[in-house]
Amino acid sequence: MWLHTSCTLSFDIPAPAPFVLMLRPRSGAQQWISREEYRLIPGVPVSEYTDGYGNLCQRLIAPTGNFEVHTSADVMTADFVDTGWGSPFVEIQNLPDSVLSYLLPSRYCESERFHDMASEISAGSQLGYAQVHQIVCWLRDNVEYIPGSSELPLSATEINSRRVGVCRDLAHLGIALCRSLSIPARMVVGYLYGLRPMDQHAWFEAYVGGRWYTFDATQNELRGGYVAVGYGRDAADVAIFNQFGPRIYPRDQVVRVDRMPD
Amino acid sequence: MWLHTSCTLSFDIPAPAPFVLMLRPRSGAQQWISREEYRLIPGVPVSEYTDGYGNLCQRLIAPTGNFEVHTSADVMTADFVDTGWGSPFVEIQNLPDSVLSYLLPSRYCESERFHDMASEISAGSQLGYAQVHQIVCWLRDNVEYIPGSSELPLSATEINSRRVGVCRDLAHLGIALCRSLSIPARMVVGYLYGLRPMDQHAWFEAYVGGRWYTFDATQNELRGGYVAVGYGRDAADVAIFNQFGPRIYPRDQVVRVDRMPD
Amino acid sequence: MWLHTSCTLSFDIPAPAPFVLMLRPRSGAQQWISREEYRLIPGVPVSEYTDGYGNLCQRLIAPTGNFEVHTSADVMTADFVDTGWGSPFVEIQNLPDSVLSYLLPSRYCESERFHDMASEISAGSQLGYAQVHQIVCWLRDNVEYIPGSSELPLSATEINSRRVGVCRDLAHLGIALCRSLSIPARMVVGYLYGLRPMDQHAWFEAYVGGRWYTFDATQNELRGGYVAVGYGRDAADVAIFNQFGPRIYPRDQVVRVDRMPD
Amino acid sequence: MWLHTSCTLSFDIPAPAPFVLMLRPRSGAQQWISREEYRLIPGVPVSEYTDGYGNLCQRLIAPTGNFEVHTSADVMTADFVDTGWGSPFVEIQNLPDSVLSYLLPSRYCESERFHDMASEISAGSQLGYAQVHQIVCWLRDNVEYIPGSSELPLSATEINSRRVGVCRDLAHLGIALCRSLSIPARMVVGYLYGLRPMDQHAWFEAYVGGRWYTFDATQNELRGGYVAVGYGRDAADVAIFNQFGPRIYPRDQVVRVDRMPD
Repeated sequence: MWLHTSCTLSFDIPAPAPFVLMLRPRSGAQQWISREEYRLIPGVPVSEYTDGYGNLCQRLIAPTGNFEVHTSADVMTADFVDTGWGSPFVEIQNLPDSVLSYLLPSRYCESERFHDMASEISAGSQLGYAQVHQIVCWLRDNVEYIPGSSELPLSATEINSRRVGVCRDLAHLGIALCRSLSIPARMVVGYLYGLRPMDQHAWFEAYVGGRWYTFDATQNELRGGYVAVGYGRDAADVAIFNQFGPRIYPRDQVVRVDRMPD
Repeated sequence: MWLHTSCTLSFDIPAPAPFVLMLRPRSGAQQWISREEYRLIPGVPVSEYTDGYGNLCQRLIAPTGNFEVHTSADVMTADFVDTGWGSPFVEIQNLPDSVLSYLLPSRYCESERFHDMASEISAGSQLGYAQVHQIVCWLRDNVEYIPGSSELPLSATEINSRRVGVCRDLAHLGIALCRSLSIPARMVVGYLYGLRPMDQHAWFEAYVGGRWYTFDATQNELRGGYVAVGYGRDAADVAIFNQFGPRIYPRDQVVRVDRMPD
Repeated sequence: MWLHTSCTLSFDIPAPAPFVLMLRPRSGAQQWISREEYRLIPGVPVSEYTDGYGNLCQRLIAPTGNFEVHTSADVMTADFVDTGWGSPFVEIQNLPDSVLSYLLPSRYCESERFHDMASEISAGSQLGYAQVHQIVCWLRDNVEYIPGSSELPLSATEINSRRVGVCRDLAHLGIALCRSLSIPARMVVGYLYGLRPMDQHAWFEAYVGGRWYTFDATQNELRGGYVAVGYGRDAADVAIFNQFGPRIYPRDQVVRVDRMPD
Repeated sequence: MWLHTSCTLSFDIPAPAPFVLMLRPRSGAQQWISREEYRLIPGVPVSEYTDGYGNLCQRLIAPTGNFEVHTSADVMTADFVDTGWGSPFVEIQNLPDSVLSYLLPSRYCESERFHDMASEISAGSQLGYAQVHQIVCWLRDNVEYIPGSSELPLSATEINSRRVGVCRDLAHLGIALCRSLSIPARMVVGYLYGLRPMDQHAWFEAYVGGRWYTFDATQNELRGGYVAVGYGRDAADVAIFNQFGPRIYPRDQVVRVDRMPD
């Protein structure tokens, strides 16, 4: 399906502040960006680089006063997300080198502390896709998804205590559980058509059967309409904006995802 | 200045043919892409990757029949290209690792065969920017720039015999001469506002004084309005499209660069 | 000075187990490996790759039974580690792209939670090297260095509660404090001549004044004799061995660092 | 088989000269370096980096006077090189991104000029491994292998005229012919046990059936005992030493490859 996504961030900047933004989706194997816009008001110099995960990052110094970032894109994305029922666990020795780092614990996914829990949750499942599916079912049943329930990123152990969280939190716990079973898992941030309430979204991918598959414990079932903007080990890597120095919050953040006529 | 660039390629494809296109400019230190469009008619699946030079490359299989690629962009680019009068030669031992490969000979720049000639041309110049400037002056005086005068890429030695060529040819000879003096040099393809006749353009950059500077022997003087789309060692790395199997030429290729209101 | 380092790991492997080892030091700007040995008993197939931090990693499947890894190296290393008194803080906007990720929180360095504490510790210091020095002094005075006091990696917040730790722990807290002040910091593992008791060692580097400087809160003063084997964001990235599945501990681990005649 | 390789280069350096050396073999999927030595006499500071092809490169400034580089290694390498009879041609659209650049023409492999010749040579062969084998047979029959017959690298078109060359020359022509058939091909330099006369060696690899296979037109048949030191598009990328400024030749170069007891 063709989607039109847009995201506007508005800031009141008290003093010039360096930002690193991650708001430019890339065309990849699973999505094609046919049109894309990125406007800064007022205009300031920007440089762009590719980070270690392949994300396009925009560096700039936000000027004092009102500062707005408008981005939008027309994206061709899959009507139905691929599922991989029966896809087997990939033995460590057969994983591509580039995937190995997604087995390690990271800031918000303390995977080395979840082995027993993950084994219990996925007990009886066939190794691979079915284990991850079992983890996602467990998350749906045991961690309440409440948009807006946390402001700052929390870690998987924190979420496991709270048993309530935003999309990012459920993804962190899902990732930690997968990695603890030696299944590579990574965070994705972006947009989802039909998400309620509409906002930036986060989900995760797990590597089984020789490729990455999409999982999302916040939705009752996997459907299409995902637009990936950033990939990383967890939320530390894929903040839509990183800003340094005294913390500045957006005064306003508006996300829209509309279906376009084919 | 703000420029609107567009490039349309039209093909008659006799049988499905794999293409690698390089038609998506990236925001970088010297240009900012605020809007960008990339349409394929008919639509086909595309995947995008970043090559070893940081270029975004689009892979697809062109379908039988009429196939069109429309790209356009709104780009903020410098009004005046930076010049570096007095910028010194960088001793080899002080070059960044990433720049070293631009000292080596490449397909169309047989730099190892130009040392004597380059020394003669740049004799008396201060080492660094002035040497490159001297090379560009020599090219302007000695190699006739005739758009359309060659179809396939020719190498620096071939152009040095012919003494006539297209923008790509002048760039190749300029690069070979620079490298033969141990000055790193690379090819850039993209657009130039006001180019006559309007078309894809090619120029080169040389690394002196700790950064890359733009040089273009096809123009009487350096001015602003450059939009870089691809970087590489020479034309072999930065074809706007690489197509494999029996050669297919575009039936039509239309490039436009218009100035936008600020 | 010339050092001879050696490290032998002995395992009892209950069932074939995939390992990723990081035991091959690389020649770099600050050390030169003139001789290097890497023996596996029994011999098994190994493949080597370079991870995202430039570390050489060895992948293999440890066979059932006794398995030994012997590595050694002759290394030319600095007699005195460079210090950078007066080196200034680098404004975020002037940091190289490749250094930015060392500002982010990571598994064992929850830097986003240390801003107030770090500001207090470094209050009054000149921005840059002096701040990091102040942090190291604080660590020496406030966190007891007891080799062997923790087995598994602990995080900076955990160490800040305990106020006692191994070299890795002090490094984690030092890194978290630096990053919270927007000073990039990274973990280094390797060897240190004269360390007591001799073992693998860990320390950290901070980026000020345009380069990385070495810091080590476990030693009373900075001296020479460091041999770096791995770099990363924290211990999650630079385990000397990562092993997957049921945990296997080395039966024996012997590290030696001897001075060689020049 | 276990091999002991050694290479000594001796230079008379007239004035301090920057060098980039490529003399450190890496452990990889097909070889394991268990011991390795790299001595410089006199000792000078060296820094090492990894180039765009994964090769370890050593940068240094050779001092005036006698300068010697001694390298040696103990290498476990395959007794028999893998062959891939029947391995099919990989359609362009199925090639990994990282392999695409080995389809492009390069300095010494003007592949875009060999399509007709390669088609003729490989006519009747099954697409894939058999085509490359046919090319190698043609090289054995039509290009005389005479060690020492050329000093400087020559290109594929030059060798095709001469019909005589060193190992590097045969590899260049083989690579150009493969690429002209859309088969990715790359150059390898290193050592070969039993080579007569013993020297540095060069051969090539072609990508068919989803992996790289070794080919060597200088030998009557493929056997084991290869030790790869560098990979690249052609000799421009994999010089065992690149030296800049007025050309310096080694006064002496001694290569040895001995079989070690298993």
